[in-house]
Amino acid sequence: MYKGGYTGKILRVNLTEQTVKEEALSQDVARDFIGGAGFGIKFLFDEVKGATDPLGPDNKLIFASGPFSGTTIPCASRMAVTSKSPLTGAVGMALTGGYFPVELKFAGWDALIIEGKAKEPTYVWIKDGEVKFRSAKKLWGMKTTDTQQIIKNELHDQNIRVACIGPAGENQIKIASIINEWRAIGRKGLGAVMGSKNLKAIAIRGTGEVAVADKDKLKAAKGEMTKAMKESHVLYPAFAKIGTPMVVDHTCATGIFPTKNFMATGEYNPVDKIGVDVQMTRNVGFEACYGCPVGCSQLKLAKTGPYAGILTEGPEFETMYAYGGVTGVENIDAIIAADRMADELGFDTLSSGVTIAFAMELFEKGILTKEDTGGLELNFGNHEAMNTVLKLMAYREGIGDLLADGSKAAAEKIGKGADKYAMHVKGLELPAYDVRGAKAHGLNYATSYTGADHCRGYAFQEIFGIPVPHEVDRFTADGKGKLTKWNQDIRTATTDAPTMCAFLLDMAVVGIAAQNTASLMEAVTGFTYTPDDILQVGERINNLAHAFNVREGFTREDDTLPERLLTEPLKGGASKGHFVSRDELNQMLDEYYEARGWDVKTGAPSREKLEELGLGYVADQMSV
Amino acid sequence: MYKGGYTGKILRVNLTEQTVKEEALSQDVARDFIGGAGFGIKFLFDEVKGATDPLGPDNKLIFASGPFSGTTIPCASRMAVTSKSPLTGAVGMALTGGYFPVELKFAGWDALIIEGKAKEPTYVWIKDGEVKFRSAKKLWGMKTTDTQQIIKNELHDQNIRVACIGPAGENQIKIASIINEWRAIGRKGLGAVMGSKNLKAIAIRGTGEVAVADKDKLKAAKGEMTKAMKESHVLYPAFAKIGTPMVVDHTCATGIFPTKNFMATGEYNPVDKIGVDVQMTRNVGFEACYGCPVGCSQLKLAKTGPYAGILTEGPEFETMYAYGGVTGVENIDAIIAADRMADELGFDTLSSGVTIAFAMELFEKGILTKEDTGGLELNFGNHEAMNTVLKLMAYREGIGDLLADGSKAAAEKIGKGADKYAMHVKGLELPAYDVRGAKAHGLNYATSYTGADHCRGYAFQEIFGIPVPHEVDRFTADGKGKLTKWNQDIRTATTDAPTMCAFLLDMAVVGIAAQNTASLMEAVTGFTYTPDDILQVGERINNLAHAFNVREGFTREDDTLPERLLTEPLKGGASKGHFVSRDELNQMLDEYYEARGWDVKTGAPSREKLEELGLGYVADQMSV
Repeated sequence: MYKGGYTGKILRVNLTEQTVKEEALSQDVARDFIGGAGFGIKFLFDEVKGATDPLGPDNKLIFASGPFSGTTIPCASRMAVTSKSPLTGAVGMALTGGYFPVELKFAGWDALIIEGKAKEPTYVWIKDGEVKFRSAKKLWGMKTTDTQQIIKNELHDQNIRVACIGPAGENQIKIASIINEWRAIGRKGLGAVMGSKNLKAIAIRGTGEVAVADKDKLKAAKGEMTKAMKESHVLYPAFAKIGTPMVVDHTCATGIFPTKNFMATGEYNPVDKIGVDVQMTRNVGFEACYGCPVGCSQLKLAKTGPYAGILTEGPEFETMYAYGGVTGVENIDAIIAADRMADELGFDTLSSGVTIAFAMELFEKGILTKEDTGGLELNFGNHEAMNTVLKLMAYREGIGDLLADGSKAAAEKIGKGADKYAMHVKGLELPAYDVRGAKAHGLNYATSYTGADHCRGYAFQEIFGIPVPHEVDRFTADGKGKLTKWNQDIRTATTDAPTMCAFLLDMAVVGIAAQNTASLMEAVTGFTYTPDDILQVGERINNLAHAFNVREGFTREDDTLPERLLTEPLKGGASKGHFVSRDELNQMLDEYYEARGWDVKTGAPSREKLEELGLGYVADQMSV
Repeated sequence: MYKGGYTGKILRVNLTEQTVKEEALSQDVARDFIGGAGFGIKFLFDEVKGATDPLGPDNKLIFASGPFSGTTIPCASRMAVTSKSPLTGAVGMALTGGYFPVELKFAGWDALIIEGKAKEPTYVWIKDGEVKFRSAKKLWGMKTTDTQQIIKNELHDQNIRVACIGPAGENQIKIASIINEWRAIGRKGLGAVMGSKNLKAIAIRGTGEVAVADKDKLKAAKGEMTKAMKESHVLYPAFAKIGTPMVVDHTCATGIFPTKNFMATGEYNPVDKIGVDVQMTRNVGFEACYGCPVGCSQLKLAKTGPYAGILTEGPEFETMYAYGGVTGVENIDAIIAADRMADELGFDTLSSGVTIAFAMELFEKGILTKEDTGGLELNFGNHEAMNTVLKLMAYREGIGDLLADGSKAAAEKIGKGADKYAMHVKGLELPAYDVRGAKAHGLNYATSYTGADHCRGYAFQEIFGIPVPHEVDRFTADGKGKLTKWNQDIRTATTDAPTMCAFLLDMAVVGIAAQNTASLMEAVTGFTYTPDDILQVGERINNLAHAFNVREGFTREDDTLPERLLTEPLKGGASKGHFVSRDELNQMLDEYYEARGWDVKTGAPSREKLEELGLGYVADQMSV
């Protein structure tokens, strides 16, 4: 019997019926899936049938913190939100930090499963075990900061935490996010799922505590972890002071910071325009998630022009790329403003920026014209146009409506060969690394169960040269299949499931992650694992997620990269001349599927592997 | 000895020395000045010498709640902020509601006196008896909502209440406000005084309680008051549902809603564009001050065009006039957006709107040109131009710099007879009532110690036809001197000092106000008063404030109205043909000064009157 970490309870909220059900958390699920993304994917596979409309009432939205969240383990206030993505049709899973994740645990819940569709705009108010459905008719149309504040005022409690959507989610744009504080459950359009359910917000307040199984063991395991943190030369002082945006300089130096829709990479190096030195002139402090000693999230205040006085938390590295590099925008204040707007209107900075960059290239190539843009000169670098179009996207107006569902959908609507310039995998826009200079990272984009997602199997070996589990050459395809499997499994098992901050893994604890997670799990929950068991949990979750996608019709064909990355070598910089050839991609995919135990031809999971992972019922269902 | 209501303590904070001093509240001051504006004006007169630079370190800023604030008396979470106004050079006193006022009392303070000037941007953090000076360097430039949130996060307490300035206050524009929540200490440029002191914010949290002298007596006195509230046909349901904006319809009907810089009143009636029916289509709820059962403050969400998704608390009636009627703007969403911007950047909606209306008339008359406006077509009704100029004012940029210090200063800079169109008294822009159709209200504008201020002696007899103390004809000048004295004294004594919501007085309790305030005061503080004693407290405060102004050089010459109101009759509507002739003004002034016991020629207070009010020391100082 699990002894702590878990609350042992799932809260099921049905919006159609306005009913609430408390369910016991199965011990088997707890042990085999740990929590967070593990729970999300388990419930998603089991409860959301194949071919379900992601924006229909039968899709579900699963909020799950992990067993570490709400304990005294630092950097563990994380939560996974899982659904079928309206953007990709695949598993949509994204994590967030802040305070909401621990509040869910303090309220007594390991997971919250949202079902059905409310008749009218609604928000759900969870105070410990008490759940209320409240009208959100008057909140509909409101931006996210105001929404959070008005709900706190309305409920007369400033300590409530709120996750909500903005106008973008209401308008079901397929790159809409869910916002808690200024943090985003950003990718895969989960905000549109909330919008489709007429669910404006979830407000939560918990007054309980999270127990742990063995305090002495926890002290020891935590000590091991914090020692690794303190010894990290990346975490302190640089990361604590600068946060993720420091990666702009690093990727510019290594020639993998993508610019102008991946056209000009290596030629155009914007480090002097939007690099750390410039960013820090806008820095006005930081925010930390609950229980985090690092506080990597930086506050920036725009100083010039129409943007003066706009504050944002961030922009994180990926946003510096999305509203900077890939769109060619060099105005730091415009990037700050766009980031805040994305949070207020509730859409993904990454997908929106990359989609606009795509439109910019089409505009420069004459495929889109001023007639399409409503008169806007949508050239690379035009920050006013970028900010204008971003807002139009949230409201589905004019050119914004064309782009509101991401680059894949836009390319289909535009035709004229536009899809050649749409930088996505499975419909999810590419994150910030030009994987022509980081091939395991590229293979992860191709194979991640969420689409092009740097968070699901981050190749820190290639990006930062960290030699764990071994040193690699970032330009070669050799061995990258196995490496990518390991990267995905370790990430899933030690961060996405338990739930822990991913930056810790990348920057401090990766060398001890599997073993330390085993120690922490034993201390917190009483379950015992070997480090291999932990890795196997990661493998199990990745297999189940993959099975979900296969059930949706995804095959090896979908595990690919945009044509540009497969055919156009980088033109300059420290990764000059490199690209991922089709042969290299195929070589990596073969190795990856073999390592995964999947069919090399179709990408389907094998019965053997599924049974080995205790997922025989999945094989039965899928007739594998 | 006062037994409750008061905390008995004054907190003196010196920003130059970064020192803090606790002082005992004098019982004489408590009894004779009650609190709030009474304390503010008492300390201002005594401590800020004649000819002090309002934006220099010798000016002071006095925050004072009243004895009712923090007790169980409803509608009493009010606070007066008093300083020498940089806009007028006269007494600058304005009140606010929300939660900050009671928090000051709960922290143990009747008043907070801010002195000196910090070397660098600073905020003051008051946790009960503990006071800290904290750096606000990183908050400088931040908007007011963000400032409040970041301070709460930084101090790890979401229940802190914050009063702060925005960029307008930092830039010391003379119509800058102080903001707490979304409420403004709006008028007379008190935000510029904070800015001049490098004081970005005051954060406060109190955990104490406010005692009362006699609970049984309080219950009885409160019962009397709440009975009057419940019986008010104005307060319920209309005012509770619509709030002050309902006065748009009423003043349009009575022909005193000013439009287009007071040029077109009576001809142009915008009730179908910005009246209640239109306003309510944007209504999304309400906010209540601490302990208020009415909750008049409405939330409005803009729906159309570039303004869609902008929320504001308000716009109150005066703002509907300032960003609507007087500027000729008919777009409700533009008004909502301007109101929110004013709160975020921290400036007075009223003075800023009237100043822009002034500039619009000058533009239409060719006195200002597109060269002056930076190319803007600054015509009446141009809402985009209005919103652009408002922002420029906060940042002192372009045409905004010319207008940033209000209409009087702008008229002086512009010359060319522009002052003829500047609608202010003593430098304070006119509020929303066209006093050509409400002459006591006009006399109050002319004589209020703060300049043209509807809040200091509101003529509800004329505006709403309330027959207390007697019925009046709003078009006649007869008897309006005495009436204005009474209106000013009752307002000061029963709302500004104790401190109570002014709407209660106007809409519910005016018939019993003096007697009920005496009963409440006895119950709360133990001091006994007759109703006449209460009125005399109002007279005392008005005399002391007037003495401050006389010491600053103000004379009868300054107690006047803009030329237009004295010479141009209303051209249509229910007040058609009326204006305040110079003879009528002089007749009213004579009667007013006589009633006040002041010199009819100069307006100076008499020694007799001052001594009668226990202000002999003032007479000594001023050699009256």
